[in-house]
Amino acid sequence: MTQTVVTSHKKKVVIGFDQPFCIIGERINPTGRKKLAAEMASGDFSTVERDALAQVQAGASMLDVNAGIPLADEPEILAQTIKLVQELTDVPLSIDSSIVKALERGLEVYQGKALVNSVTGEEERLEEVLPLIKKHNAAVVAISNDETGISEDPDVRFAVAKKIVERAQDHGIPKEDVVVDPLVMPIGALGNAGKQAFHILNRLRNELGVNSTCGASNVSFGLPNRHGLNSIFLAMAAGAGMTSAIMNPLHEPEMTGVMAADVLMGVDKDCLRWIKKFREPTQAAGEGGEGRRERRRRRAGA
Amino acid sequence: MTQTVVTSHKKKVVIGFDQPFCIIGERINPTGRKKLAAEMASGDFSTVERDALAQVQAGASMLDVNAGIPLADEPEILAQTIKLVQELTDVPLSIDSSIVKALERGLEVYQGKALVNSVTGEEERLEEVLPLIKKHNAAVVAISNDETGISEDPDVRFAVAKKIVERAQDHGIPKEDVVVDPLVMPIGALGNAGKQAFHILNRLRNELGVNSTCGASNVSFGLPNRHGLNSIFLAMAAGAGMTSAIMNPLHEPEMTGVMAADVLMGVDKDCLRWIKKFREPTQAAGEGGEGRRERRRRRAGA
Repeated sequence: MTQTVVTSHKKKVVIGFDQPFCIIGERINPTGRKKLAAEMASGDFSTVERDALAQVQAGASMLDVNAGIPLADEPEILAQTIKLVQELTDVPLSIDSSIVKALERGLEVYQGKALVNSVTGEEERLEEVLPLIKKHNAAVVAISNDETGISEDPDVRFAVAKKIVERAQDHGIPKEDVVVDPLVMPIGALGNAGKQAFHILNRLRNELGVNSTCGASNVSFGLPNRHGLNSIFLAMAAGAGMTSAIMNPLHEPEMTGVMAADVLMGVDKDCLRWIKKFREPTQAAGEGGEGRRERRRRRAGA
Repeated sequence: MTQTVVTSHKKKVVIGFDQPFCIIGERINPTGRKKLAAEMASGDFSTVERDALAQVQAGASMLDVNAGIPLADEPEILAQTIKLVQELTDVPLSIDSSIVKALERGLEVYQGKALVNSVTGEEERLEEVLPLIKKHNAAVVAISNDETGISEDPDVRFAVAKKIVERAQDHGIPKEDVVVDPLVMPIGALGNAGKQAFHILNRLRNELGVNSTCGASNVSFGLPNRHGLNSIFLAMAAGAGMTSAIMNPLHEPEMTGVMAADVLMGVDKDCLRWIKKFREPTQAAGEGGEGRRERRRRRAGA
């Protein structure tokens, strides 16, 4: 069974078909967050700190860290952010940049085995990023587009993913360390985006045997009740074979979708996490009381 | 593409893989509803009337009608209920009984092509029910258990379903008119109940090419946040191949799950039903205004 193992200095997370869905917190990312971008550029990491702690508290298994700020020294800011987040939390990180120099700096300061986000099927990118992954013994997100762009044909996107996995193997990176992002389109623009995604995810699991991820909120772009739609998308994608997502763990509907999918895929053992989260307070108290009485009875030898 | 066509005197509903998920309202059923049972037994159908109208209003595509009341004249009450519900609503009905005489009486009074709920893989039952289905040109729900009970092995349950489909064909009933219920177990008791269900549903779609249904709330029995879990189950089951469910359309989370699955499976054309349901009131008003202005402009020849 394919297992992608990522670590921090303190903690190991396994992404896999027999594991709980891996929630990668998306919040530490200045893209589209002007205030955060300005803060990070000026060396103020207070929002980063809050976002890191809140996401882990909300149930993130990993955190994505991105420092893509126009005209700023992205490699340096990314390295600073990674060091800070590793001081504050113990979850493994996804080092996220489109600039290879930034990925390199990030990997240099990272403690553990990181997930690098990302490499595409473009020749130049493959040959720049894969040696870095190998050198640092990291795992990598493989985005299924190449020089020709993003194909609307899911089988072409699958073929691009397959090419990246094979190229990674050429570089000595096992397929377990490649996590494919099949690129989910907004369904408001492309009506079969959901079916396409499920089709690729199925093939990634059944034919290629690799883990997968995606930016989960893209699918609902432009539609009302985005959280409701994202929640159902995440669960259906998990059913089709998706094993992780870059998402906002502070959104309750999405988290419920992922947790229910874990129950229904049989990876929330005895439904314990579901029960813990949703048990009625009175019921919980009642059971606690029962437990205490039971313990007293046992101590009394009854 | 497999299509199960059911009709009332006024309306046709198609169950199929390229159709919106078919919501079969479960409320008209005295099982576990003592007050309703007493009412129906005494000839008071006021709750039945309210349940019929409310479920159709809430979006039911069909209604299940059951009159299983201990010691009562079930065939007669079922026939009365069917006549009444057909007077009040125009949706096709699922005639639900474990008593063959009741199914027979129901079919006699029903106007249109009904769904009969149900036949099992038990020899005696097959040979009693299937001739009735053929005689009345109805469709039938096939429950995948037999004399040996309900197997915990999903492949055995698939085999029972296959046997029923083949036996139906021997009786001149096409496989399009058999809707398989794979029997979903409570996941709190059987941790792999979800995965099992998705596995059978996949085989029913891909290998047998038949429509499917289930009682959707069983899966969450004994767990907290049942509506949340049912909602995700329905969507994941739809993704795996389930095309209908006997469910309560008055429960919002379940309806949202089904509607989102329709969007994501590409059968809610242009996401219109999703947008209509969840569009913000202000946005809707704005668009209405736009529409009115547009119409005025067109009338003015601009």
